[in-house]
Order: sequence, then structure tokens, then C-alpha cells
Amino acid sequence: MNYNERLKEALRKSGSCLCVGLDPDLERIPESVIREYNSLPEQVASFLKTVIDRTQEHCAAYKPNLGFFEALGSSGLEVFRDVIEYIPEGKIIVADVKRGDISSTAEHYAKAYFETFDVDAITINPMMGFESLQPFLDYPGKGVYTLTLTSNPGARDFLMRPFEGFDTMAAYIAHNLARLQENHSTRLGMVIGATKAGNLAGVLQQHPKGELLIPGIGAQGGSIADLEKSLLKHEGIPLINSSRSIIYAGEGTEEWQKAIFDQSKKLKQALTSITHRYAS
Amino acid sequence: MNYNERLKEALRKSGSCLCVGLDPDLERIPESVIREYNSLPEQVASFLKTVIDRTQEHCAAYKPNLGFFEALGSSGLEVFRDVIEYIPEGKIIVADVKRGDISSTAEHYAKAYFETFDVDAITINPMMGFESLQPFLDYPGKGVYTLTLTSNPGARDFLMRPFEGFDTMAAYIAHNLARLQENHSTRLGMVIGATKAGNLAGVLQQHPKGELLIPGIGAQGGSIADLEKSLLKHEGIPLINSSRSIIYAGEGTEEWQKAIFDQSKKLKQALTSITHRYAS
Repeated sequence: MNYNERLKEALRKSGSCLCVGLDPDLERIPESVIREYNSLPEQVASFLKTVIDRTQEHCAAYKPNLGFFEALGSSGLEVFRDVIEYIPEGKIIVADVKRGDISSTAEHYAKAYFETFDVDAITINPMMGFESLQPFLDYPGKGVYTLTLTSNPGARDFLMRPFEGFDTMAAYIAHNLARLQENHSTRLGMVIGATKAGNLAGVLQQHPKGELLIPGIGAQGGSIADLEKSLLKHEGIPLINSSRSIIYAGEGTEEWQKAIFDQSKKLKQALTSITHRYAS
Repeated sequence: MNYNERLKEALRKSGSCLCVGLDPDLERIPESVIREYNSLPEQVASFLKTVIDRTQEHCAAYKPNLGFFEALGSSGLEVFRDVIEYIPEGKIIVADVKRGDISSTAEHYAKAYFETFDVDAITINPMMGFESLQPFLDYPGKGVYTLTLTSNPGARDFLMRPFEGFDTMAAYIAHNLARLQENHSTRLGMVIGATKAGNLAGVLQQHPKGELLIPGIGAQGGSIADLEKSLLKHEGIPLINSSRSIIYAGEGTEEWQKAIFDQSKKLKQALTSITHRYAS
């Protein structure tokens, strides 16, 4: 199956386009987990496995964020592998690495994530040029989400500025991804911030079939209703991500596992009409 | 000592501004190393330690490139730590990670590289905006090299294009780094490709005191004479990097250790007049 079909299947089976971000802030592990395990790597792995247990009914995908694993030091990639191996069959795994490099370095990143760790998709930063994508382009079952229009204030420094005749650099990136997609089997999606809903139309129309990874609902405050309107004409399947609003839903309480379950369920429900449009 | 002073000291002691890039291509480990060790992680670590042994007389710095370590899978960061711990005291270690993220992810990257692994400097990709730099800005002994004008053909897609009233996006980045440097203690340097010598002046003048990390001599073909001319007015200390031309100098021969020694010595000598200008 190609990545697009696998995505659709994951949405259909879970009835959800929710992606749960695995951002294990090392200072926010629940007390009960800390009491049970002695080492930080074990605490992080145990916490994330519980998050996976409590959310899998409600999501299509997981997005582990490598920065949080690297902060564990030399055991970081071991914990990463342990956690992704725990994710149930049929869920999409997006490694949020935001790597962007060229030639043999980029080839090694492709080898690392599409072969050694064998995740379904990764995030890429295109600033060194579209050749950064080259080694990732011919994996038919895989997806690449290129940073296109992010949800943070700093998007104003580059991605939201006019560039090369396009209203925004984001539209320029989308245009080039659509062009590249014509000749390559890896699905070339985009990272698009939900908090930027007002600016989305011009970007999405450049790459109307591009799969979307959309952070920014939940803790970052993006509105689902606005997002739904922006997606009306878009054909590429969206994964809508929330990290902190789910995994820290019950922070500081004994009921944190239930809070994680409840919050992911609530988001799944809020996303129902978007899910149905793309899963059918 | 702040990063600037430590850099100068490293140049002075070694008599070299050469930085040796540690890009351990997993398919190019010498035969004799492969015969001696059973596992790829051990082979990589052993090869890189020999590279360090043979080059330390001729360089101020080492630049391990994380992509090559991640390709080792779950043991990648263990090998990375093992190798950086082997680098002699007084050498500058630049972790070539090209990370670029925001808020808590960026904070975790800062924790990972400036605290847990405790390297001297890292490379950063600014595409998500200058807030990507925020968590790295107040480490007086550390340096951050932001991707500014890279040496690859893809630099034409973004970094070499006109942007926001500047001749190039690279000049815009340099301008913003100089502005940020005014209020922060971490030294804010730039990654500048040697093969782009003709375009350097307009970029360097925006941030004349910025430290430089310059890849692109050696395998990528940049001319040292052209580079020297471009640096005439620049005050920030340069580290001039070569990776493949050194570590694979004797590829396929029994004499590979001697070839690594000879090639790093040759580059040190070729860089003598640049080194002297900045070390005194």
C-alpha cells in the first residue's frame, strides 16, 4: 500500500484523524511513574506507553518528537525505538525530526528513519533547498511532511513573508512540492499550522492533493471550526496533531490516565466531520 | 572563558583553523577496522577515534554530523557520546545537528546538546523563525552557527534569493543574527559555504563579528585563495571544515591512517595565513 492508502486506512479503522504528539517533557512525568522507575529513560518509556494505551482508540497516528528523546542523552534513541515498537500495528508513525541536510547526510537520515527505525513518515525542513528531499523521494509506502506554514509566531520571520512572486514563502514551498510530487512515489505532504487558518487558502491551492500534518490545535489554541472551513477544497488527507493538551491533560492529578483517555476522546469527537470526509 | 576566547585558544594551540568533519559513512569504513570489530557501532567508533588520533595535531575543532550517527539506529547517540568524549581537551566540538524547532522542543534540544552532551557549539536551521534560537541564546561559553549561506546547489532555492529588501536571504539572516547578538552571551555565528565565495561580501558585512563555520573546501571544491580574500575584512573567527577529503583520504588502501594524517597536515598548511590572522 502506498502512504496515502495507509493513511486512509488508519483514519477509517480508528474513526479519527487525530495524531497524538509524543513530546515527553522530562520535567512533567507523572509522580506515580517516577515512583515506579528509577531511571529517567525508563520513566519516559513507561509514561509514553501508557499514553499510547489510553489514546489508541481515538487516534490514527502518533508523532514522537525527537528533541525530547535526544534530551535523554545517549539512551535517547533506544527509548525512541522502544516506544515506536510499542505503537500498535495500523497506526501511522510520524517521526517529528525536522531534519534538513544534503547529499550523504540526507541519505543517512533517510536510511535512519525509513529503514533502520522504519517509521511511516518524517518531517523535513527545506531551507537548504529542495535537494534536501532527494534521498527521501522514492519510498512508495512512506510520507514526508515538509515544513510549509508553521503555527508559531516566528513563522513571520520567513514562512509568512512574500517570496519569489508568491504571497508567502509557504505558497512557494507548496508549489515546489506539488511539482516534485509529479515524478516521485513518496507522498509529499506539508506541515501547516492550525493557528494560521486565515492564511491557508493560498498555500493549500498550490498543492491540493498534499497530505497535511496540522499541529496547533489544543495547547496552541487553533480553532477546529476555522480549520474545517480552510480544508473544504483540500483533497490531501490531514492528520491533526495535539501533543501537550493530551499527554498532560491530567497533570498533577492521580487521574492522569483517565484525563488522557478523556481528552483524546474529546478531540476525536470534535474532529469527526473532518475525519468522515477523508476516511470515506 | 566565552566561546570566542575558547575558539581563539584552540586556533592558537593547534596553529590551525581546520575543523575535521566526522561524517562516518557506514559503507566506507576501512577494511582493517571491519575485520577487527564485529558490530557496526564499534567499527564506527573505532574508525573515528583513529581519525581523531591522526588529525589532532592539525586541527582546532571536530564537527560530528548527527545524521551519520542516527543511521546506526538506537545505539547512535551512545556512539556519538563515546566519540566526543574521546576528543582531546581544548579542541572545539561542533555538533552538526541543523536542528530548528520552537518552544519546548527547542528547549529540549538546548538541554540535549549544551547540557547533556555538553558540546561547545551546534548548528541551527532558522526557518521556523529566530525564536528557534531562543533557548540557546544565554550560554556564555557556547556558540551557535546558524545556517546562513550553504555550499550546496540547493542554496539557490532559498538562501541565495532576494528577501525582504536584502540581496539574499543569507544577508537577511546575518543582519538578524547581528541584531540578536547585541543582547545575548552565546556567540551567534554563521554557516557559510566556501564554494559561495563570490557572494560572501554582502553577507559578512551584515554580521562582521560573527564566528564562521565554513564547509566546502576539499571534497566540495571551494578555493582557499578565494576564501581568504573574502575574509579580509571579517573579524569573527572562522573554522574551516573538511570532512570527506580527510577521513576518506586513503580509502581502499592499507595506508589510510597515514593518508588521513597527511591530508589534515596539508590542509592545515594551506590554511596557515588565515589561521595566523585570527589566532594572534
